[in-house]
Amino acid sequence: MALKKKPVTGMKDILPAEMQVREYVTNQIRETYGGFGFHSIETPCVEHIENLSSKQGGDNEKLIFKIMKRGEKLNIEEAKEEIDLTDSGLRYDLTVPLCRYYSNHAASLPSPFKSLQMGSVWRADRPQRGRFRQFVQCDIDILGDGSRLAEIDLILATTTLLGKIGFKGYTVRINDRNILKGMAAFCGFSEDSYDQVFIILDKMDKIGMDGVEKELIEAGYEEDKVKKYLSLFESTTPDASGVRSLGETLKGSLEDDQAENLAAIIDSVTGIATSQFSIQFDPTLVRGMSYYTGTIFEIQVEGFPGSVGGGGRYDKMIGKFTGMDTPACGFSIGFERIVTILMEEGFTVPGSQEKTAFLLEKGVSDELTNQVMKEAMEERAKGVTVLVSQMNKNKKFQKDGLLKEGYTQFKEFYKDNMK
Amino acid sequence: MALKKKPVTGMKDILPAEMQVREYVTNQIRETYGGFGFHSIETPCVEHIENLSSKQGGDNEKLIFKIMKRGEKLNIEEAKEEIDLTDSGLRYDLTVPLCRYYSNHAASLPSPFKSLQMGSVWRADRPQRGRFRQFVQCDIDILGDGSRLAEIDLILATTTLLGKIGFKGYTVRINDRNILKGMAAFCGFSEDSYDQVFIILDKMDKIGMDGVEKELIEAGYEEDKVKKYLSLFESTTPDASGVRSLGETLKGSLEDDQAENLAAIIDSVTGIATSQFSIQFDPTLVRGMSYYTGTIFEIQVEGFPGSVGGGGRYDKMIGKFTGMDTPACGFSIGFERIVTILMEEGFTVPGSQEKTAFLLEKGVSDELTNQVMKEAMEERAKGVTVLVSQMNKNKKFQKDGLLKEGYTQFKEFYKDNMK
Repeated sequence: MALKKKPVTGMKDILPAEMQVREYVTNQIRETYGGFGFHSIETPCVEHIENLSSKQGGDNEKLIFKIMKRGEKLNIEEAKEEIDLTDSGLRYDLTVPLCRYYSNHAASLPSPFKSLQMGSVWRADRPQRGRFRQFVQCDIDILGDGSRLAEIDLILATTTLLGKIGFKGYTVRINDRNILKGMAAFCGFSEDSYDQVFIILDKMDKIGMDGVEKELIEAGYEEDKVKKYLSLFESTTPDASGVRSLGETLKGSLEDDQAENLAAIIDSVTGIATSQFSIQFDPTLVRGMSYYTGTIFEIQVEGFPGSVGGGGRYDKMIGKFTGMDTPACGFSIGFERIVTILMEEGFTVPGSQEKTAFLLEKGVSDELTNQVMKEAMEERAKGVTVLVSQMNKNKKFQKDGLLKEGYTQFKEFYKDNMK
Repeated sequence: MALKKKPVTGMKDILPAEMQVREYVTNQIRETYGGFGFHSIETPCVEHIENLSSKQGGDNEKLIFKIMKRGEKLNIEEAKEEIDLTDSGLRYDLTVPLCRYYSNHAASLPSPFKSLQMGSVWRADRPQRGRFRQFVQCDIDILGDGSRLAEIDLILATTTLLGKIGFKGYTVRINDRNILKGMAAFCGFSEDSYDQVFIILDKMDKIGMDGVEKELIEAGYEEDKVKKYLSLFESTTPDASGVRSLGETLKGSLEDDQAENLAAIIDSVTGIATSQFSIQFDPTLVRGMSYYTGTIFEIQVEGFPGSVGGGGRYDKMIGKFTGMDTPACGFSIGFERIVTILMEEGFTVPGSQEKTAFLLEKGVSDELTNQVMKEAMEERAKGVTVLVSQMNKNKKFQKDGLLKEGYTQFKEFYKDNMK
């Protein structure tokens, strides 16, 4: 029987050239965060359906690949709806599994716990160019530290990583959900209108100040209110002093010292930032997930639309599992985005070792084979990559391919003689 | 709502200490096979249900986690059996996906293609100690090389790997399915009894020659036949000359020069083998999967039951996808088994770098924080792992934990003063 050759819809096979880049980025991530004291962890790809449907995942919960119950439990004839047939699903992010993991193992983990989790997630998104139904996420989180040390550590580690991978000219945009809300409150928007207001505000990048004004007014908000709101954005500078003066303005509308906290984060990172990146206060930064409770951030690389990473503080989520609030702050690195950018730029993995190919004609003697194998082992012991391969009929084609793979030395062995 | 803290049945969260070992083994695998010219590839974890049910997977096909169809297609009320509800499942091995991958991409891959695939697979096995429903497999395959170069290359690469990881005293057992069948044919067993005979023969390790004799006779085979069969095993030595003389004996019952081929593989590997391992002809080696067509092998480590890897030649399987036979030979490394052995032996990852912890009392000034962060960055640039962390109330407990993680230097920073 002929079988299906293509991968399932929306998922992809990864070819060797891309794998090299993926493994390189993976190693850089492990090494960099490892150097900051982060621990690698792993959670199963399959998660309880209850946890996946706990309303922590927003719209992603609509995209779950559900796994059928097994064995006696499965009564198809009597099943009425999906939940009768499934008790687990593929995870759609790494945050829900991380919270479960931490609730399960906190007693045996360091506190604060600095976690690095890389792994595939699945979403039954409409297939489209560059968007896949299985993709790798990379989450870095600090659990159990409510102070701004967590934010500073995460931003320094992540910018260090991007620098190591070779990115230049990127910007960390930072905001705080409390300031976002405080600005809206200060201008007289009611709390139940925040979601709508922020969705419009989030388009600032694309439609500009005028576009946001127009849409807010079209949505029925009074012109006075809207103008006051927008002038607040206009008068704010994207640095620590901008945050502090905004904090002064918003005093009555902020619960805590959130502006000073954010300004101190910006100060600290600015003091250490290399010339390769800058950190900017961006009061229009929204980030969609409802679980964020404080600082939010995103990283943009010059010349590439969208972000290569983002995250924030989510102090209330672990409590959903444990009943006890645990401060948490994390970054999600756009692993697939970074790989795509590197592939498009024709990136080659640096420091690849010397590569030699030994090609053997079909039918060479056992003596010669053994001699070649021995020589290959000796070269490998010196750190050289040695491919021993049958020689193809079309030797030129074979060698051209190997040249492209980075082989620079060739030795050919023939039935009659060595050439 | 309190959520479920434990992972789904039979799957496990991986704690940081085990992750270190897993990542170390993973890197050794990538590096070693990379040095032999193998290419990393990746296939989706989700596979077409048709491919998973193609009878290539033996009993594993009973253990598939099936994924529910999505969207309009799913008509639960009218569904009669599982196949109405599912069109994909989690892969139970890496062989079926590899065959699909190769059929799909052969034109853009080198020939022969040396593949390294590591990834999770899922089997709904009865949960039991040390056996999980999600586990990592690691497959190394050479596709498109029908000669014994493939076997020799695979055995050399895999033994090199085990040596690098630190194993000493391991044995490669090798056989050929054709010799296995030839021996049975030579002694007069009919072809339709092979499966049963081999299942009994496979127990040789556990029940010995007498036990095998007893079971074969109990199964109804004539005593003469059984005695002739067993004396053939007794008279065979576990080396290349043993294979050659067995080949002479079986001449009429072997189709080809399979004995000479196997002997030449043993000769070649023996000539290169370090003192760390030996290769032995084992005519009782069966290996269950029906897809093997030639050489089969398995590696055992002294002092540990079971094997740490095994594989063989399967020249007919890719043809099931493409309609065109493609020779193939592969090894599956027991990744989880190796990790378990290392963990049990208290293995520590070698060459870990210097580790320093900077502990900050809650409430230290921004100036001090920034100074600490800067110093940490400078140390990291020199290759030191530096953890910056809030100081816990129970500082002794915290430091004891960090000592266990390998931190040797501590610096403590206080609100009032640096100590």
